[in-house]
Amino acid sequence: MNIDSYVRDVPDFPKKGIVFKDITPLLKDKRALTYTSAALSDLLKGTSVDIVVGMESRGFIFGPMLAEKLGAGFVPVRKPGKLPSNTINESFSLEYGSDTLEIHIDAIKKGDKVLIHDDVIATGGTAKAACKLVERLGGEVVRLNFLIELEFLNGREQLQEYTIQSLLKY
Amino acid sequence: MNIDSYVRDVPDFPKKGIVFKDITPLLKDKRALTYTSAALSDLLKGTSVDIVVGMESRGFIFGPMLAEKLGAGFVPVRKPGKLPSNTINESFSLEYGSDTLEIHIDAIKKGDKVLIHDDVIATGGTAKAACKLVERLGGEVVRLNFLIELEFLNGREQLQEYTIQSLLKY
Repeated sequence: MNIDSYVRDVPDFPKKGIVFKDITPLLKDKRALTYTSAALSDLLKGTSVDIVVGMESRGFIFGPMLAEKLGAGFVPVRKPGKLPSNTINESFSLEYGSDTLEIHIDAIKKGDKVLIHDDVIATGGTAKAACKLVERLGGEVVRLNFLIELEFLNGREQLQEYTIQSLLKY
Repeated sequence: MNIDSYVRDVPDFPKKGIVFKDITPLLKDKRALTYTSAALSDLLKGTSVDIVVGMESRGFIFGPMLAEKLGAGFVPVRKPGKLPSNTINESFSLEYGSDTLEIHIDAIKKGDKVLIHDDVIATGGTAKAACKLVERLGGEVVRLNFLIELEFLNGREQLQEYTIQSLLKY
């Protein structure tokens, strides 16, 4: 199935000159949704995963589906002030500015094998921050998994120690 | 499975005097995650659904899993400025203040049977706004589905014309 045709280019969003990859047409098509979730988990065949970490908020869409398919738990990484219990945080720069992410300190157990999932990898800042959070809690990042990779932004450059998989590359 | 034991009470979050129902312990436990997603979809047995609408951002967690299990598509309802294409919006009051939600105008087709899903129903303001957005686009809200219902906040009162199902009631 050609899921690429369900990703819509929206010019000048969120800023002039940026072409945003909108996955909402893919999500609302039941066949494309099911196909994509299966294809993302197929990338991980044979990989043992205890926890899928998904980044707020579009990483929450396929992250839990992946966790269910892999027999893993799901852990949200969120923007500051959203997680109610004790957290650690990492600040980072991203394509359109800078941001901070938080994780619950009890979200990862030492030695947990962790898959990081998000819908898009752009400059890699968000993913790198998520990896740091997981590793500070003693988890092992076994794979990074994305629906879309914006290759021209070279996100892999700052993530060279990790195995990165993406379904659609632009 | 007693999933209630995986929901953590966090006192004084997000404000003094509020006891927050934290579902992150449930999400990170692989058995509880799988059980919950199956139990939510069991509530809907025999219901024909074209689209599951989930509210940003915790409605994104189980919404897409439900959509996959029901053979439906998933549509996100988001905070202002997050959806890249043309939207309509609804403002509403909620437990801790007021807010606005947006939906893409092409998200729902006239006559679509829509399930509204969120993790928690509190005063019902968010759910009511989501119903209005769906109906303004010509969709039919066939069911509202929540993981947690805070019964003491009487969310059902302003949603009397709908069928509401929740897994855990407090």
